[in-house]
Amino acid sequence: MDIKVPRGTQDILPSETGKWQIVEDLIRETCRLYQYKEIRTPVFEHTELFTRSVGDTTDIVQKEMYTFQDRGNRSLTLRPEGTASAVRAFVEHKMFGYPDQPVKLFYMGPMFRYERQQAGRYRQFVQFGIEAIGSADPAIDAEVISLALSVYQKAGLKKLKLIINSLGDTESRIAHKEALVNHFEPHIEEFCSDCQNRLQKNPLRILDCKVDRNNPLMATAPSLADFLNEESAAYFEKVKEYLTALNIEFEVDPNLVRGLDYYNHTAFEIMSAAEGFGAITTLAGGGRYNGLVEELGGPASPGIGFAMSIERLLLAIAAENKEWTEQSTLDVYVISMGEVAKKKAVELTYELRQNNITSEMDYLDRKIKTQMKSADRLKAKYVLVIGEDEIEKESAMLKNLSNGEQQLVPWDQLVEQLKNSILA
Amino acid sequence: MDIKVPRGTQDILPSETGKWQIVEDLIRETCRLYQYKEIRTPVFEHTELFTRSVGDTTDIVQKEMYTFQDRGNRSLTLRPEGTASAVRAFVEHKMFGYPDQPVKLFYMGPMFRYERQQAGRYRQFVQFGIEAIGSADPAIDAEVISLALSVYQKAGLKKLKLIINSLGDTESRIAHKEALVNHFEPHIEEFCSDCQNRLQKNPLRILDCKVDRNNPLMATAPSLADFLNEESAAYFEKVKEYLTALNIEFEVDPNLVRGLDYYNHTAFEIMSAAEGFGAITTLAGGGRYNGLVEELGGPASPGIGFAMSIERLLLAIAAENKEWTEQSTLDVYVISMGEVAKKKAVELTYELRQNNITSEMDYLDRKIKTQMKSADRLKAKYVLVIGEDEIEKESAMLKNLSNGEQQLVPWDQLVEQLKNSILA
Repeated sequence: MDIKVPRGTQDILPSETGKWQIVEDLIRETCRLYQYKEIRTPVFEHTELFTRSVGDTTDIVQKEMYTFQDRGNRSLTLRPEGTASAVRAFVEHKMFGYPDQPVKLFYMGPMFRYERQQAGRYRQFVQFGIEAIGSADPAIDAEVISLALSVYQKAGLKKLKLIINSLGDTESRIAHKEALVNHFEPHIEEFCSDCQNRLQKNPLRILDCKVDRNNPLMATAPSLADFLNEESAAYFEKVKEYLTALNIEFEVDPNLVRGLDYYNHTAFEIMSAAEGFGAITTLAGGGRYNGLVEELGGPASPGIGFAMSIERLLLAIAAENKEWTEQSTLDVYVISMGEVAKKKAVELTYELRQNNITSEMDYLDRKIKTQMKSADRLKAKYVLVIGEDEIEKESAMLKNLSNGEQQLVPWDQLVEQLKNSILA
Repeated sequence: MDIKVPRGTQDILPSETGKWQIVEDLIRETCRLYQYKEIRTPVFEHTELFTRSVGDTTDIVQKEMYTFQDRGNRSLTLRPEGTASAVRAFVEHKMFGYPDQPVKLFYMGPMFRYERQQAGRYRQFVQFGIEAIGSADPAIDAEVISLALSVYQKAGLKKLKLIINSLGDTESRIAHKEALVNHFEPHIEEFCSDCQNRLQKNPLRILDCKVDRNNPLMATAPSLADFLNEESAAYFEKVKEYLTALNIEFEVDPNLVRGLDYYNHTAFEIMSAAEGFGAITTLAGGGRYNGLVEELGGPASPGIGFAMSIERLLLAIAAENKEWTEQSTLDVYVISMGEVAKKKAVELTYELRQNNITSEMDYLDRKIKTQMKSADRLKAKYVLVIGEDEIEKESAMLKNLSNGEQQLVPWDQLVEQLKNSILA
């Protein structure tokens, strides 16, 4: 029996990884422009980190986590998202004491959720996210949103939709929670058992239940917008003002609640409006999480961030039919015939690489003609041919594949000549 | 109780990730020069993949794997190394049918081994590795070794030692195995229970036992070198010839056996010879694994590869006292005073970033003086000051922090002026 890739996961093959590298470079460059610095946390964490931050009534914690005991009997969980780890690290390494606040972090790496298989949804997926911790300035909410949009714009996406909402502060949320309980309680027996459990504990989570999404009570549920206190409303106004100042278009959607417990105030999602993108159109989501740093043992430090899936970003690029211009990265293919020439080919190939000239050669002792075919297929700019004649003359025949010109070049002048031609 | 990073793992903080990025860029660039293309496989695999390839009598499989059941009752294991996954993908995606052979792959990502905590050894660590599958040419053994050395040289390391050995083909190994059984059997009760189990099954593994390393029978054990058949010896000679042709120095160490079952023929390690590097001096290890592709269900395809730990590479750089030149990446810090100026600062900061100019601003409504201190600490090249005066003139005061020069620049000329100054 052959062993396959685990269900719900995928291999990214050499023909695809080039796109990933381009997108990741573009993300790192955007973070540099915005001055977010990378942080790397382990792929697994103590399970308690996620039950305490993401919330133990969320779908993620209840149904989707990869949790296991290690050989020391610790309960560990493959991280389902990145914010909890970033905030844990912020507290553990006392980043609240850094002279420059807010601390601006980004991360990029695999996340894990045991979900039903679906197009564009994998059990291991890659998220890029940022966190700005230590400022409650609505201007930084705008910065965070603008960074996400900037990544998509640089990737060439044009059909984007930004949706924002305010989840308010604690006071507003308590008032809203009460209203939600009153709304759902009389009919709670129509809902799934998870929702029944959520009713008293966390009725907001009912609103993002995947089972009961079509129940008519969902549409008529009281909206948080009507329960925002003055301070929360003023904060939200400021965020909208800043977005407007940056010419960033947005829609307010009072039904936008994010599926994680730690959010408050600003919440947002960026969707693809491209046709044929499929059912799941959310590309990125994020929001403010004032209180999370304290929940994880640090001093009061307001935070905001977002996460985006790289898989979906690549899908969105494909949906907008953006062309990837595949560039040849091969400068020279070294062709040789016979044992002596082969040895010289090994040496020259190595010398070219040592001088930053991309080169490749044959490792199957194939005929010259077949080696030439490889050079063509790999879109080499030049071939270098070494046969008996060339060995005698301590030279190699250098042929430019774009115009067919060829000339005999002494071995010790090859690097210089190629450097000049490739740079020219 | 605060939640900490799991035992044996680490966070890599923003002050450190810059080094990782530099090293990883250098690795990707080296792979491009050598024409190895990236492959990304999941972080976990079916457990059977590792028992079958790494070998069920190895320390890795017996003691160090993170193995767990997923919610679908599959036995999964966090990958302890990268070769098994790359070869699994090679078979699953029928890469043996690609027109250009050998298929040259590289990977970079986290690996997991539940090991005793030790300096420079983590339970999650990052490995970079390459695999060349589909050629039994000794010239590619030399290529693989030269790529590993090239990475270290580019990272500035000078104190390197290359050790090679041949583990021979199947025939040679069977002859050697017999001699090992005869050697250890009379005294096997002096050895640990693992070694006793290994005696008949896989006596070669006794040689890398960490418990019995000081038993005198280890030093007198029959050497594989004396059992190499003609073909294996000739292959090894060729590898040494190619290394010599490339001016790559090496030592032959007949005791070098690698701790994984799939190796045969060429095996090698690169060590740091830097003083104060500590007990574990191996930076990279690899070898040939003809037969592994078949073992995992593919057609006969000889392969060779290596893996290196990025953590150890960074330790070696530190041990050789290489300086990291920290470059400022901040072009402009935008300073503002008052609500109107603040809003303008948000706009200008955004505009600069949209034009690829790195910029930062204050999000804590601090005093001008304190904002100025931040600009200094972040090593900004310029500050841009916006106060009431500047608002009136629709301009900002641009100050070059390296020479103190300042001038009033209209908002709509800022980008152009800064682009010229920064590029100049």
